[in-house]
Amino acid sequence: MRAVTVLPQKANSLELSDVPEPTEADVDVLVDVLAVGICGTDAEIIAGEYGEAPPGHDRLVLGHESLGRVRQAPSGADVAEGDLVACIVRCPDPVPCANCAAGQWDMCSNGRYTEHGIKGLDGFMRERYRSSADRLVRVDSALGLAGVLMEPTSIVAKAWAEIDRFAERDAEKQKIALVTGAGPVGLLAALLGVQRGLEVHVLDQVTDGPKPDLVRDLGAHYHSDGIENLGVHPDIAVECTGVAPLVLGSIEVVRPNGITCLTGVSSPGRTKQVDLGGLNRALVLENNLVFGSVNANRSHWKAAARALRAADRGWLERLLTHRVPLDDVRRAFDRGADDVKVVLQIGDLS
Amino acid sequence: MRAVTVLPQKANSLELSDVPEPTEADVDVLVDVLAVGICGTDAEIIAGEYGEAPPGHDRLVLGHESLGRVRQAPSGADVAEGDLVACIVRCPDPVPCANCAAGQWDMCSNGRYTEHGIKGLDGFMRERYRSSADRLVRVDSALGLAGVLMEPTSIVAKAWAEIDRFAERDAEKQKIALVTGAGPVGLLAALLGVQRGLEVHVLDQVTDGPKPDLVRDLGAHYHSDGIENLGVHPDIAVECTGVAPLVLGSIEVVRPNGITCLTGVSSPGRTKQVDLGGLNRALVLENNLVFGSVNANRSHWKAAARALRAADRGWLERLLTHRVPLDDVRRAFDRGADDVKVVLQIGDLS
Repeated sequence: MRAVTVLPQKANSLELSDVPEPTEADVDVLVDVLAVGICGTDAEIIAGEYGEAPPGHDRLVLGHESLGRVRQAPSGADVAEGDLVACIVRCPDPVPCANCAAGQWDMCSNGRYTEHGIKGLDGFMRERYRSSADRLVRVDSALGLAGVLMEPTSIVAKAWAEIDRFAERDAEKQKIALVTGAGPVGLLAALLGVQRGLEVHVLDQVTDGPKPDLVRDLGAHYHSDGIENLGVHPDIAVECTGVAPLVLGSIEVVRPNGITCLTGVSSPGRTKQVDLGGLNRALVLENNLVFGSVNANRSHWKAAARALRAADRGWLERLLTHRVPLDDVRRAFDRGADDVKVVLQIGDLS
Repeated sequence: MRAVTVLPQKANSLELSDVPEPTEADVDVLVDVLAVGICGTDAEIIAGEYGEAPPGHDRLVLGHESLGRVRQAPSGADVAEGDLVACIVRCPDPVPCANCAAGQWDMCSNGRYTEHGIKGLDGFMRERYRSSADRLVRVDSALGLAGVLMEPTSIVAKAWAEIDRFAERDAEKQKIALVTGAGPVGLLAALLGVQRGLEVHVLDQVTDGPKPDLVRDLGAHYHSDGIENLGVHPDIAVECTGVAPLVLGSIEVVRPNGITCLTGVSSPGRTKQVDLGGLNRALVLENNLVFGSVNANRSHWKAAARALRAADRGWLERLLTHRVPLDDVRRAFDRGADDVKVVLQIGDLS
């Protein structure tokens, strides 16, 4: 069958390969891949920055944002033939750390986890894969192709679950959230903020293209005039760009007892002159909290499925700005200025 | 009676004044002040950097780290004549914010709190004060003068209570803590870490004077070779200096899912070239958490009283490296290189 593969840590080794059918004996659900979303991690793997093939393999099948349909499942399993499913990306090491053993593989503390399409496990840019049922999460069939947003939604579902946990210490009700960046993660973070009843403000640079309207159609406020001109002091900031001035700004902008959640994976080496004394002083005197959030465990994937089911399907579909068939896979990585989420279409959704 | 006062925001206005006896009608416990600890906040107020006199007053009575003995209390009050007590520093505004109303004045969200000896309320460098019983916390009489450590201990009791709260999300047991700075706050943070059963490492610059032995006599490890040569990856860092490179180092040094608590109030304007991209990336990919912690509420003051009662009294007394009588108050601010805590003795403890 066809699959999109790379030689990990070798730049520009992407190709459409012929790979064997999945035969793993111990993983008894067979899934037809319908679509895979593309994100910055894929681009970094293609550029050779990181990535790791499965043991004994040279090539890694790319892709971790999957939507599939169950073709075969044992009777009595949590998923059945015809179900739309997404596959959880991270798996614990066979000798799990305490967090992985507790089902919190997103908090893996020994770094020996594996991740489909990224680290030691093949991804989903292939026609079929096998999985055990407990790694699959059902997606509402009414979502159609928008179900491909499960993985980025799981990321923001974890971020919000952590924010909710930390906000418990504060007797003030959280009312205002800032999201920096109106890419897929930022827009989905804004969606979940609006679903929580918060007044949500989204900051990005662009003044045209689909992003301003996508934000406004959520009932949120769009800003493009810089974080220093925001005019609000949010209770919560969810930073989704990894861009240094916005990381710093999202820490500085929140009110006392405020929470800043960092989700953007920035490139190292972006130095900046920082008033660390002033920043530390403000954090201390205002009891502010800053945390980084990565990945998602099963509870967050299930929260993502609920959040997508509760969202407007038309709005979700507008995030999918570019759909590329598998045969044209190279085009999927030519990101346009107005693109939100590019989707590689692999199977037939109809 | 005699009191140490300043004209707030006027440098070097410190004097030993004659002030009226306390007569507040609604605060029915009369306390003889025995001793007041001196900290960096006092020095900054003397330097005119901040400070605010009570409404209608020109001068502010200095001092917030108090130890006193109850001279008069109504029958049935929580404190009785002869009790050693410390007075809680921060008071909510008469129209409290949600946090102050919930007894969490350390998390005050509108900034309208007052603080004895700092902001809008007279402090304790005077012979007597009046207080309502619910602002006083009893101190074990066996502690003697070491009871003057209640206020800095309340600061670290809050820091540790917050660390404990945040550590609940991590299935790994917290084993190793780093404390940066072996001043009073750092040493008391180390004491509470040891009391929690942690392996505690304390980093400071000095190689002589009392600090290395004070750390070792706690059963903790003393380091003076820089944070980059620590040789351990702590689960928790408690930063007690406010010095920019240590603030940054204490964020970078913790393991995945690690917690860094910032307690040091640094001077603003200390800029530093920071690899913000790399720092943000590490925070995100390691789920790290950084928070600032200031002040303490009643629950933390009571935790401080328990921590001091459980500590070795001889060790606590060794923190009080310099005892100055009230008449020599100016000498109390001439801090020696080997000083840990300087104490102004006001009453007779015997």
